Parts: sequence; structure tokens; C-alpha cells
Amino acid sequence: MQETLSAADRAKKAAGEKVAAMVEPGMRLGLGTGSTAAWAIRALGRRVREEGLRVVGVPTSYAAEQLARAEGIPLVTLADVEALDLAFDGADEVSPELNLIKGRGAAHTREKVVASLARRFVVLVDESKLVDRLGTRWPVPIEVLPMAAEPVLRQLRRMGAEPVLRMGKCKDGPVVTDQGFWVIDARFPGGIDDPHALAVTLSTMPGVLDHGLFLGLATDVLVGQADGQVRHIRRP
Amino acid sequence: MQETLSAADRAKKAAGEKVAAMVEPGMRLGLGTGSTAAWAIRALGRRVREEGLRVVGVPTSYAAEQLARAEGIPLVTLADVEALDLAFDGADEVSPELNLIKGRGAAHTREKVVASLARRFVVLVDESKLVDRLGTRWPVPIEVLPMAAEPVLRQLRRMGAEPVLRMGKCKDGPVVTDQGFWVIDARFPGGIDDPHALAVTLSTMPGVLDHGLFLGLATDVLVGQADGQVRHIRRP
Amino acid sequence: MQETLSAADRAKKAAGEKVAAMVEPGMRLGLGTGSTAAWAIRALGRRVREEGLRVVGVPTSYAAEQLARAEGIPLVTLADVEALDLAFDGADEVSPELNLIKGRGAAHTREKVVASLARRFVVLVDESKLVDRLGTRWPVPIEVLPMAAEPVLRQLRRMGAEPVLRMGKCKDGPVVTDQGFWVIDARFPGGIDDPHALAVTLSTMPGVLDHGLFLGLATDVLVGQADGQVRHIRRP
Amino acid sequence: MQETLSAADRAKKAAGEKVAAMVEPGMRLGLGTGSTAAWAIRALGRRVREEGLRVVGVPTSYAAEQLARAEGIPLVTLADVEALDLAFDGADEVSPELNLIKGRGAAHTREKVVASLARRFVVLVDESKLVDRLGTRWPVPIEVLPMAAEPVLRQLRRMGAEPVLRMGKCKDGPVVTDQGFWVIDARFPGGIDDPHALAVTLSTMPGVLDHGLFLGLATDVLVGQADGQVRHIRRP
Repeated sequence: MQETLSAADRAKKAAGEKVAAMVEPGMRLGLGTGSTAAWAIRALGRRVREEGLRVVGVPTSYAAEQLARAEGIPLVTLADVEALDLAFDGADEVSPELNLIKGRGAAHTREKVVASLARRFVVLVDESKLVDRLGTRWPVPIEVLPMAAEPVLRQLRRMGAEPVLRMGKCKDGPVVTDQGFWVIDARFPGGIDDPHALAVTLSTMPGVLDHGLFLGLATDVLVGQADGQVRHIRRP
Repeated sequence: MQETLSAADRAKKAAGEKVAAMVEPGMRLGLGTGSTAAWAIRALGRRVREEGLRVVGVPTSYAAEQLARAEGIPLVTLADVEALDLAFDGADEVSPELNLIKGRGAAHTREKVVASLARRFVVLVDESKLVDRLGTRWPVPIEVLPMAAEPVLRQLRRMGAEPVLRMGKCKDGPVVTDQGFWVIDARFPGGIDDPHALAVTLSTMPGVLDHGLFLGLATDVLVGQADGQVRHIRRP
Repeated sequence: MQETLSAADRAKKAAGEKVAAMVEPGMRLGLGTGSTAAWAIRALGRRVREEGLRVVGVPTSYAAEQLARAEGIPLVTLADVEALDLAFDGADEVSPELNLIKGRGAAHTREKVVASLARRFVVLVDESKLVDRLGTRWPVPIEVLPMAAEPVLRQLRRMGAEPVLRMGKCKDGPVVTDQGFWVIDARFPGGIDDPHALAVTLSTMPGVLDHGLFLGLATDVLVGQADGQVRHIRRP
Repeated sequence: MQETLSAADRAKKAAGEKVAAMVEPGMRLGLGTGSTAAWAIRALGRRVREEGLRVVGVPTSYAAEQLARAEGIPLVTLADVEALDLAFDGADEVSPELNLIKGRGAAHTREKVVASLARRFVVLVDESKLVDRLGTRWPVPIEVLPMAAEPVLRQLRRMGAEPVLRMGKCKDGPVVTDQGFWVIDARFPGGIDDPHALAVTLSTMPGVLDHGLFLGLATDVLVGQADGQVRHIRRP
């Protein structure tokens, strides 16, 4: 079946299978959301079924939970485990310092909770996600309390960003996250000068739950290629 | 600008402008959600600005609220008004008895709360929405508590329906409504035999908030045509 | 330690231990919420730890989930199991027909989802909960979408009920349920004439998620006594 | 009727009436939550009704919204007004620098959104709320996504705090906020050394929506006394 995959899917699959191969028996895992993480969950499910690999997973979203359940991966919650041995997830942008922008799937708040508890956080991408500077291609998704959306939009504009409220395609009005919040996609023309300063600014804005900047969390990046090769970048 | 509208949009606009023309000074209005109701809100906003028409509106969704605010229509809540004089909204299907299927925009729960309080509930559609029998073209959207999604899906299948959980396009995983719930779209092959019996069955399913069957609520249907004409069907 | 328990707690404990003793290996259980169900969960946890009893439980609330986890009872969701073998829960009132009013803990919506999937639904009470007629002592809790609270309050008053919005003690404003909804406690002076008709009326009110009438669900009632005896009432 | 008030209520009433007297025509106001702010809303309602004072208010909670509506104060949202001229609210602790701990009513997230938009933020307290050092009497309430409650509790313990999940009295399980989140009350034995550093730490914890430290926001503190006098402290 592999020959029917697009080049992008072959790259995603390669990265997903690579991280599944890194998992060791007994590990407590963070299960990411999105199409690349889904390849990893499927490969992991195969190991669980075929090798009898014993692991438990904490899903980062309903989507990850449903897939992991279908794949037979035992699920636990963050009340069951104190720490995670390894978490994996996709990303929209990866900087040379292994800082990330995430959140196109609107799952970044739970993804960050999970990633922050992992000893090792492995990011799964293809080459197109590697950037010299964060914010050059993708906006930063910001999850916001609906009643605070307007003030946050105005404050972002004053900061020079170009923010838009993400609207639904399968529902009228704004996209609603798994927490019942909204998402503002804030584009920063020219990219982000100081991601750490921006992260603190966004986190301390009243009404902001969390944002898509993942700084200092990734320990490994697996860059899948269309030919099935995977480049492994480690945090220095 | 009208010449650039599609035939479908000209029909929607005609119906929307017609209901806006039916509004009288002092009326308390229910403001519907969706593309046809949006034409009505815009036409109403024009009357508010140009004629000084004094009305108040209760929006059925964040989408309707944002548009109405932009159009300068004063907004109130259901804690401010005991009843509504007129509410308008779109529909996915309209039966000869003026029963409806609504909910493609996932706003049907709030829409039904508002419609049920209106002395006159005016439905805005084009000819394609008129059906001989409910359920022949569209599924019935059912808003469900996430933890109850699986049992409700199973119960619907046992009833002979073909239900699917509505998935997001701008977020990973299920579409989340303005209330934080999920939507199951239940197709009934061959259409719905007894809408009233089905409505009670769905409403009394544990974990179901509300469904897209609107029975006995519509008093008027305005059927817009591409040539700008509007056919007015009244409940007998 | 038992000598320090109040008479009410001894009765609750007796009923809770009795249902825990009814559990058989391999059962899929619904775990109720509230002080009486908590005794059952603790007794069940003891059997899990001491006898190696193998069961899985679906909790009806965060409160039940936290207690069951602390007691070492393996938890699953309604996506994992198609049906439940046995569910247990408390009640505010039990009629001679084994119909119930539940919801003082604001958990009745999830409790009803769980109870409705159980082959056997065992209600744990003390003598004070047995009534000749539902509604004579307690109001019916109705879980409602906040935007619909006012119209539902008004409609209940028109029906002759005396409804009040339940207010918080540890938060300002209304109590918020685990689903983010509000609770209206509707007292019916003189009791409820026709519980089945009322249940349909409440379920079909726009904006109502669910209510505290549990009709035709209970198969067993265990009435705990202060002396440790338990009276077992079976549905005829 | 005033003679029937307790000393505490007389002090609250004095502060509430004082801030209501500071309001000028045309002002856009933030309306706080809690018993002291309620006195201010009532006094403001009197001015609206008796003097025809024209103002608009943004409520910080359902509780404030319901009271303001009953008092006849026109309400708007943060989508209607770009800034607020004056906001008032209570507090649990006030430091000599006019930094605050708020959140006993679990409304602090919306309260902070509103306070941060106000040119003038007036805090209403009695003498018992004045402390030399924040955190000596009250815990800091932290609003948290339920799935992140356990990791946040553990991280707070590692920081030397004594955190507890706030439990409901009128519902089983945790108190749920108006946003559907939970509240962790974190006591800091010996008080808080560096409130600014703690505020950033809390805001940047994954899964934390907001916390009860209000730093640099208060411009005025009105300290009500049981004899009806009010001491006015201004930010230097």
C-alpha cells in the first residue's frame, strides 16, 4: 500500500515509525495529535499487538485518544502517572534551537501540558517545517477565553501582530477547542524576534489559556524524508 | 454588486430582505445563524441605521452576535425579554407541515431555545430545502455530551440510523459546539417516518442536549428565488 | 473505627458494602457519585486489593473517578465497554415503583448515562429516602444551558413548580456542573402526579440537558439500616 | 435598615457607596463580583434610576451580571468597548504596594480581564484585608484545566506551596468555574517572597488559565470602616 502514499505522507510515516521504534517496554508515553503523530500511534499499536510491548499512553486530545483506543494502546491520565518517559508530537515550525510553533490542530494546550511532563519530547516533522526563525511561515495559535477575545486581538495588534480569530468550517462561528475556548492565529510579520519574551507576554495576557510557542521542551527532532530516511536532530 | 452574486446567494438575499421588511418598530427579535440569516441581519442593520428602526435582538450564536453587533443592532439576552415577537433562521429541510431539520452549523440548540420563545418563527430557505418527507436529504444533527457519544452512536445504529460523529476541519478531532459538546449527524435511510416520535426518543436519550428536529415551531416559510421573488408559505 | 460513625453513616456503609459484595469477577461496573456510593467504592477497592477481584469501572463524575483511582479500581470509559453489568448509585427519593429523584450532587446527567447502560442498576439509600410519592421531599434538579436558564425558570413556574437556580457556596454565582451547565431545583408542591409525563416535558424543553427523574431504571434498592442490616427491594 | 447590618457589612457598604459616588456620566465601568462589589452595584443602580446617570457596565461574572441587570444598569461586552474608564472589585488581601490576592469567589480570571482594561481600578475592602505581605492569610487561587490539575498540584508542592483542589459544597467533586475549569488554592507558608516572579511562574505553567495575583493593576483602594468612614489609598 505504501506506493499509494504521497511524498508528504511517506515522510510523516517514516518519522512516526522511527519514534515508535524508540519506545522501550514499560514506558509511559505522551501521545500527540495530528497526522504525523497518528502514524506514530499506528506504528506503536502494531508493536503492542505484535510484540506484546507493554506501555501506557496519555492522549493529548480526543482525536489521539480515539485512535490509541482503536489501536489497543492502554490509556491513563495525568492523575495516574507522575511523569512521562517519552512524548511525541508534530509541529508547524521548528527552529535551529529546537523551539517550536504548534497548534494548527487547536490541541496545543493539552499537548503542552503533556510535553512539559516528558523526560524526552520527540518532535516529528518533514523538512518543510524547519525554519531559520520562528513565525516566518505560520502564525502563533493562542487559545483564549471567548469573553477576552476582543481585548486580546486588540493587544496583539498593538504589538504589531496580525491576529485573526479562527473560524469553523463545520460549524458556524469560531472554532471551539476541546476546552470550550477560541483560537486566535497571530501572524508576526518578519518572524518573531524574541520567542521567550513573546511567550511570557502571551502567557500573562488575561484571558489567554496557552499559546503555540513550545520553547525548551523538544529534546529530539525526527525529520522524515519521502524516501523513508529519517534525520535525527538532538538538542545540543 | 448584486450581479456578482450566485443564484443561490440571490435567493438567500431575497428571503433575508423579505423578513427584514416584516419587522415592526419595538419588536424583540430572535436572530438566526447561517448564511441566509446573515442576509436578514444585514438588511435589518440597514433599517436600524437608515430608518432609525428600534428593535432588540437575541442572537442564536456567537456568529450571529458578532454580525449583529457590527450591524448596530442592539442585543439583549433571554434574561432581559420574556418572549420574542419574531425570530428568523435558516433550515436544512422543510416539510409540507413546516417541520424542519436544522443544525448544519451546529447552532441548533441555541436556535431552538430562541425559536421556541417566538410568537412568529420565520424560516428562510431556497427551493432546494423543500422536501416531501424529513430526513430524505440531510441527517439529523444531535448535540451530545462527549462522554455519552459512544452509547448514543450505538443506540442510533440499533434504531436503523447511520450516525457519524462530525469531525473538524480547522481543529483535530470532533467539532465542538459553542456549549463544548459534540455533534452526531444521524442519517435515516428512507427518511423519517414519525418525526414527533423520533424527537421524543432523541430528547430523552441520556447525554443528548438537543437535536435538529424543529417540529410545530415554524409559523412562516419564506422561499427565496434566484430572480429575487419570495414565496410566502404560512402555517395553515 | 466503626463506632465513631453516625447512624446515617452506618446505614450508608451497610448499603455500600452490600452492593460491593454483589459484584462478581469480570463485571463492568458503573460507579456512582455521593457519600453512599463512596462507601461502595471503598468496599469494592478493598475486594480488588485483598481478593484480587478483577473488574473495571466507569465513573459517573470526577469525584467518583478520583476515589476509584485512589482505591485502585481500573477505570474505563463508555467508549471501551458496550454495556455495564451492574451500576450502583445513591438517590434522594425512591418511590414504591422504584422510580427515583437524583441530583443533589449535580452529577445526575452522567449518572443517568451510566445507569441507562447497566443490566442491573442498584440504588443505595437509607430509610429516609423512601417516599410514597416522588417530589414530596426534594425538588427535581434540572441541568440547563446557562443561556436558557431564564426561559426554563419561567416555563417551570407556569407549570406550577417552584424553581430556583442553585447558587454556589465556594464560588460566586450559580453552581456550575462538570459539563459547564447550571442546575435549577424545581420543587413541585404536593408532589409529582405523573412522573413519566413530567420527564418527557422536561427532556424536551429547549436548553435542558437532563433532569433528576430516573424512571424504570432501578432494578434493586438496598436500604441500609443503622444497625448494619440491609433490606433488599427488587423490582417486581 | 442600616442598623441591622453587621460591622463587616457596614464597612463593605461604605466602600461600595463611595466608589459609586466616584462614577461620572458616560463612564464605561467594570462591575466586580462578591459581596462588597455587590454593594457598589446596588448603589450605582440607585444613581442610574434616581439621577438618570448614564453609564454602561461590563460584568465580571454571571453573579455580577444578574445583579446589574436587576438594578437596571445597561450591560455591554468587551467586544463593545475598547477600554474601561473605571472598574471596581473586592480583594482577599491588599499589600502596601497595592498588589492583591483575589479569587475566593472563583471569578478572578474574568475579573482580571476586566481590571486590566480599566484606566482606574478601584479595590473595595475593609481593614482586615490589608496585609504587610501577600500570602500570609489567604492562599492564591489558580484556575486550571481539569486534565492538568494533578501535574499543577505536584509542581506547586515542589515549589514549597501547600495546594488543595477546591471542592464543592452544592455539587459533588471539585468546584467548577464559569469557564468549566477547576480551582487550586495554593497556600504559601510564610507568605510570598516575590509576587512578580510567582505570577510569571504560575501564568506559564501549562494548563493554568489564570491566578489570583493582581499586580500593578490597582490604582485606588477604598477601605471601608464599620462607622461608615472610608479611607482612600492611592497608588503612589
